[in-house]
Amino acid sequence: LHEIATLLNAELSGNPDVSITGVQDFEHAGPSDITFWARTTPAKTPSRAGAVIVKRGAPALFAQQLAVEVPHLAFARCLELFHPHRPHWCGISPQAWIDPTAHLEEGVRVGPFATIGPDCHIGAGSEIHAGVHIYRNTHIGTHCLIYSGAVIREDSRIGNHVIIHCGAVIGADGFGYVRLPQQLPHKIPQVGYVAIGDHCEIGANTCIDRSTVGVTLLEAGVKLDNQVQIGHNVKIGPGTSLSAQCGISGSTTIGADVIMGGQVGVADHISVGDRVMAAGQTGITGSVEAGKTISGTPHQSILEWRRNMVALRHLDDLVGRVKALEAALATHQANESEKTSV
Amino acid sequence: LHEIATLLNAELSGNPDVSITGVQDFEHAGPSDITFWARTTPAKTPSRAGAVIVKRGAPALFAQQLAVEVPHLAFARCLELFHPHRPHWCGISPQAWIDPTAHLEEGVRVGPFATIGPDCHIGAGSEIHAGVHIYRNTHIGTHCLIYSGAVIREDSRIGNHVIIHCGAVIGADGFGYVRLPQQLPHKIPQVGYVAIGDHCEIGANTCIDRSTVGVTLLEAGVKLDNQVQIGHNVKIGPGTSLSAQCGISGSTTIGADVIMGGQVGVADHISVGDRVMAAGQTGITGSVEAGKTISGTPHQSILEWRRNMVALRHLDDLVGRVKALEAALATHQANESEKTSV
Amino acid sequence: LHEIATLLNAELSGNPDVSITGVQDFEHAGPSDITFWARTTPAKTPSRAGAVIVKRGAPALFAQQLAVEVPHLAFARCLELFHPHRPHWCGISPQAWIDPTAHLEEGVRVGPFATIGPDCHIGAGSEIHAGVHIYRNTHIGTHCLIYSGAVIREDSRIGNHVIIHCGAVIGADGFGYVRLPQQLPHKIPQVGYVAIGDHCEIGANTCIDRSTVGVTLLEAGVKLDNQVQIGHNVKIGPGTSLSAQCGISGSTTIGADVIMGGQVGVADHISVGDRVMAAGQTGITGSVEAGKTISGTPHQSILEWRRNMVALRHLDDLVGRVKALEAALATHQANESEKTSV
Repeated sequence: LHEIATLLNAELSGNPDVSITGVQDFEHAGPSDITFWARTTPAKTPSRAGAVIVKRGAPALFAQQLAVEVPHLAFARCLELFHPHRPHWCGISPQAWIDPTAHLEEGVRVGPFATIGPDCHIGAGSEIHAGVHIYRNTHIGTHCLIYSGAVIREDSRIGNHVIIHCGAVIGADGFGYVRLPQQLPHKIPQVGYVAIGDHCEIGANTCIDRSTVGVTLLEAGVKLDNQVQIGHNVKIGPGTSLSAQCGISGSTTIGADVIMGGQVGVADHISVGDRVMAAGQTGITGSVEAGKTISGTPHQSILEWRRNMVALRHLDDLVGRVKALEAALATHQANESEKTSV
Repeated sequence: LHEIATLLNAELSGNPDVSITGVQDFEHAGPSDITFWARTTPAKTPSRAGAVIVKRGAPALFAQQLAVEVPHLAFARCLELFHPHRPHWCGISPQAWIDPTAHLEEGVRVGPFATIGPDCHIGAGSEIHAGVHIYRNTHIGTHCLIYSGAVIREDSRIGNHVIIHCGAVIGADGFGYVRLPQQLPHKIPQVGYVAIGDHCEIGANTCIDRSTVGVTLLEAGVKLDNQVQIGHNVKIGPGTSLSAQCGISGSTTIGADVIMGGQVGVADHISVGDRVMAAGQTGITGSVEAGKTISGTPHQSILEWRRNMVALRHLDDLVGRVKALEAALATHQANESEKTSV
Repeated sequence: LHEIATLLNAELSGNPDVSITGVQDFEHAGPSDITFWARTTPAKTPSRAGAVIVKRGAPALFAQQLAVEVPHLAFARCLELFHPHRPHWCGISPQAWIDPTAHLEEGVRVGPFATIGPDCHIGAGSEIHAGVHIYRNTHIGTHCLIYSGAVIREDSRIGNHVIIHCGAVIGADGFGYVRLPQQLPHKIPQVGYVAIGDHCEIGANTCIDRSTVGVTLLEAGVKLDNQVQIGHNVKIGPGTSLSAQCGISGSTTIGADVIMGGQVGVADHISVGDRVMAAGQTGITGSVEAGKTISGTPHQSILEWRRNMVALRHLDDLVGRVKALEAALATHQANESEKTSV
């Protein structure tokens, strides 16, 4: 425990010689586990955990306590410590198909039944798992992790330390047609490409379409959850994270450090500013200024939306109240005219 | 027909010697087909069907009629009878990649270009189709059916009689990051696993994320449609079914026998009780008591929601009515003050 | 440029001898590029482009201008001219698995690790990329393009000139169960098939379920974006296009030339008429007449919806106004009764 405390730069209280062999959540942690506690953790104290990470300044609640600035980060570090990445494949499988013009740097691992097309370049230390397909002229940086079933279409540019999860599709054709009367839609060739910056993570079964011409761009540190759809010619700024099942329509620009909940839809050809936060299922129908927190379809500021939603829940009552007012007024006017006629 | 009637424990009226060779829907059934009729079937009688399954107590409408308690179940049984499962692969393909430490029980079938990692265990009679990828230390029960393109990540636990459709991804990393000011998001390692109970069915391109620590759990008989997203640390009770494109956020608990329509979104860290029913596109933003039927975003009871939606459709009229009231009141007050001044 | 003008049947103004070697968007086009300009293009004139496609009758804005009836179509033609399709695989890979009973016509290309099941038929000139899986008794027409990771289940019927993108799943089981009290859901076998007409395009990770019995049908020229879900027994008319993440529930019929934005949900067993247009995130809860433009959940005509949404944004204010009216009326009535009592 003492070693862990040093590593985390944590203030340790309790017995420094407790032996820690694993990481668990607060509820299930046992005497040889480390876990973390926050004010929002359901209070099932006392925990049986061998040690508990808390925020600096938290009360003394546990036998062994590690006080740190950012408990979540310390917890992540413990997970990294006890669960270092174990590569899934050794070397280059003889059952992979690799075009002779492809260049693989040192330490690249390729699983069986993967294919790597002509003129591809794979950076040092990257893992290409079984059944990954990489089309021609794609460049992948160093220390990337491409999981089984992912497909990367031709001409893609992937940075360093990128993780692409199972079944993700990078660089499929954008959705563009010319519609003429009395004819079936006419496909517009999609001849651009996708570029993904360093430290991005692309969720399982997520799709990022290639641009019509030019580039569909994810800057460094963009995090996409599963089943996200990124249309052609979209640009996304650094550090932005989009939760599962979000869809960004073509040619839209998303700023830096944007956070979206699940199932958010964003219209085409608009701009969403830096640090915008959108609640789940928001429908963003027009451009949004930097720093706004929004919700609803069409989107509103979350404060307006909350007030309006409270009102919406009682809309039927409101109709009743208006009806009552109308009746009262009618009665009143009838009385008045009676008086007048009197 | 007589044999079928016996098998279905049905009350047969009409000619028991009619020869039945297939199953069809009501509209397309011919003289050698069996089909079923319900009160909701568009009434295009007389049907040309050789035999019609009806609910016990239904009127005599067809030449050959089989009266049963649950016509849908009898129809399913007929489909099973006339379309028994035909395995897609014989034995273990020499073109599959199977780690020597993997254990395959008797009668397992594996298609070409499938991979089965170290320490995996596949139960008797399970079919692993072409191009399925199973990562290390995954246990799969007996009589499972894993379709092409599905990927199962390391340490997963899959029960017996489970069906996993094409492109489904079991055990991809949950979506968890620590966000610090002025830095790119820092990934929290996802070191837990996914457990799936007996008789579950997982739709095409559906994703079930592994937990951060601990387990993401589907109990027995959970049915997920296509493109469903299950976040990390979610628990789902037995018999629950979620329609296509539903998304369940992390650490949420869904009860037993819950039914959700398509595109429902569920917030994180909440609890949805047993037998809850949610209409399509519902946004479940907080915990829901057992037995409720809900709709809307944020969710409401379906009765409230229907009343409010009727009102919403005439909201613009309501604004007009309030405006009229305000005008009437203003006029009235003006008159009053005139009178007073007189 | 002169040659291009002839090919596009365009009216050329400026120097016909300019050499054009590429196609670019308006912003990035250089002196040897052709691009197009529309009244909606953000006006960053003068463009450095070598030539600009404009609509016939547009003002003379650029050195070299090609005036045509439909600029988008002319632009698509230029992309086709400068970026002709380059096949990804030569001949039939010895590393593909092809059942001896499958029939491949002339000029079919098959990548490594693809599988083609018994009794399949692949038409002349079709490309089956690496890692595509085609189950038994599937017929694919001529000049189709099936990208890596796509899976086509047994008995499918695919027309000519069809494009199926990476990870798409054609013919997975429909989502159908019988629910009985106190029991897990009982699966209804899905024994029908999927038929896809000529010139259809199926997006990445899109799913089209096979029918229970009979057919799930896409007529000619249907265009599906990524991550679309088509339920069992759905029928879609010619020329219809559905944007990303739309979901069509079972047994619904969609007409011809329908256009849906992203994330639209459509209920089961309903009918959506020809030429209906639905805005993103619309929830179509009942049948829609031909030619309507709709939005909202539940759907309304777009005009009604817009009026109601404007009202909804000020709903909280409206509640305040009703409250004020109630107060005014109460005061008034109090005064009146005072007068009366006087």
